[in-house]
Amino acid sequence: MDLPETPWIHTLRFVLEIAATVAFALSGMIAAARQRMDAVGVCVVAFVGAFGGGTLRDLLLDQRPFFWVRHTGYVWGILALCVGTMLFMRQRHFQPTERAMLLPDTIGLGLFAAIGVDAAMALGLPPLIAVMMGVITGVFGGVLRDVLCNEVPQAFSDHRPYALCAFAGGWVDVALRQFQAPDWAPLLACVLVTGGLRVLALWRNWQLPAWRV
Amino acid sequence: MDLPETPWIHTLRFVLEIAATVAFALSGMIAAARQRMDAVGVCVVAFVGAFGGGTLRDLLLDQRPFFWVRHTGYVWGILALCVGTMLFMRQRHFQPTERAMLLPDTIGLGLFAAIGVDAAMALGLPPLIAVMMGVITGVFGGVLRDVLCNEVPQAFSDHRPYALCAFAGGWVDVALRQFQAPDWAPLLACVLVTGGLRVLALWRNWQLPAWRV
Amino acid sequence: MDLPETPWIHTLRFVLEIAATVAFALSGMIAAARQRMDAVGVCVVAFVGAFGGGTLRDLLLDQRPFFWVRHTGYVWGILALCVGTMLFMRQRHFQPTERAMLLPDTIGLGLFAAIGVDAAMALGLPPLIAVMMGVITGVFGGVLRDVLCNEVPQAFSDHRPYALCAFAGGWVDVALRQFQAPDWAPLLACVLVTGGLRVLALWRNWQLPAWRV
Repeated sequence: MDLPETPWIHTLRFVLEIAATVAFALSGMIAAARQRMDAVGVCVVAFVGAFGGGTLRDLLLDQRPFFWVRHTGYVWGILALCVGTMLFMRQRHFQPTERAMLLPDTIGLGLFAAIGVDAAMALGLPPLIAVMMGVITGVFGGVLRDVLCNEVPQAFSDHRPYALCAFAGGWVDVALRQFQAPDWAPLLACVLVTGGLRVLALWRNWQLPAWRV
Repeated sequence: MDLPETPWIHTLRFVLEIAATVAFALSGMIAAARQRMDAVGVCVVAFVGAFGGGTLRDLLLDQRPFFWVRHTGYVWGILALCVGTMLFMRQRHFQPTERAMLLPDTIGLGLFAAIGVDAAMALGLPPLIAVMMGVITGVFGGVLRDVLCNEVPQAFSDHRPYALCAFAGGWVDVALRQFQAPDWAPLLACVLVTGGLRVLALWRNWQLPAWRV
Repeated sequence: MDLPETPWIHTLRFVLEIAATVAFALSGMIAAARQRMDAVGVCVVAFVGAFGGGTLRDLLLDQRPFFWVRHTGYVWGILALCVGTMLFMRQRHFQPTERAMLLPDTIGLGLFAAIGVDAAMALGLPPLIAVMMGVITGVFGGVLRDVLCNEVPQAFSDHRPYALCAFAGGWVDVALRQFQAPDWAPLLACVLVTGGLRVLALWRNWQLPAWRV
């Protein structure tokens, strides 16, 4: 995605991306710890949580090289984060960490969704597919994490809007691209709509419409 | 697959494809409901049940775009089906639905297997690989559905011939291609053999040879 | 990988590859039997255990055709092995078999890791990615096996060095490539280091550093 030549926007996006990646990786580590996995499992699940969604999207879109192949610094970063977390984080820190990660996780959901939409639109795919790729980018890291942890994916079973927020944000992103808006506008709108809906959903305790079987 | 210029054969195949896709999606929805998934989970598992097999085959064969990317109408259709099902289907309808879906599911198994064989043969792959791709197309939607639902895949554990029927049908398909038969003959033979074996297996209560460990 | 024109090295590598593939397939069969899977499940899980790691690596690296597509003899071999095993192996043989398979499995871990490193280096990928691809080749057959069997992957949860040995072996492989060593040297070094570490770990009962949560 070409951002305008405004350095602070680059910097902001970079900072947000790092924060989101850390949040996704930490959710993987904590999930692995709850399954009593060993150090290898913790690192793999952290990596899958952080990069699984984008990697699955690139597999489906047949794009190479993956983000983490182009920027191996991220892989080293995840490894260092795993070592640091395993040295210093204890059971009693899990809940506070998860609470502190809610915001970067939410921003990451929107940001990754926008990146997924952008990747699909750049290939000229239809809007629905672009939105699906956005949702996959934002959500399937967590899904693959839960599959490796042998659990029903949380994104499919906790009855709170998560993927749905990214779905809405993705459509806003796609819609804004119809106009002659500057490049960063759809990205920002996607992050704001996804994040705003997610915050609203958590704050007002919204539930997904249930299937009363 | 080029079918002859007989419009009713096109129509028949189209109708069967729709019926099979609905049956596969419904099996996904019911599996998700049994895991008490939310609306997002129901839609995703329905989608994976319907298109997961063909998508995995295309990933393995490196074919793009996927069927559902070329025909986004199917994605919209699955979404509409999910909404309708969640509004009107209740627990007491699950068993009758599953019984009513046995036939379209069986036809779908054979039809999807034939499509998978065709995709692999078009790339000049060996017969064994083509038959494997047929089985993957017909069976792995259900396997991925069960993995997402955190269950041992039914196709691997219910001791009744399912994948094996598609395996037999796939070999018949491959064999018929050696002759100067019209294009639709192998497809039809695959559907008939797969479906016939499956119906026989259910009717006579055949069991797969067990491993008496 | 071009090996020197020394026929016995080709033969040795071929024999080791067969032994490793058999070990990986047997681990899949035994895992499937423990889940009371049917004959279809046993064959599929055996196949995934044997070829899942290399197939996932080739998917990630966008390489086709897969090893088992080029050499369908291996697929027939796995099928024959499954039939033979189901006919003649009983519960009481599981533990002795697993013990007998420890050595070929360990050799396979190192050999498959070296093959994965080689595949990535041939594409000019960075060393870290090459080592990751080596680990994936050696380890993810077992991970996918456990996912299909609805279990937490053993490689992530048994607290004994397995993937870590392949990780170390992979780095040795990458390092040796910097020198003007003959082609077979990095391969051999990777197998010896991986295998040696694994044997040491089992013999001295090493545990991975635990996360004391």
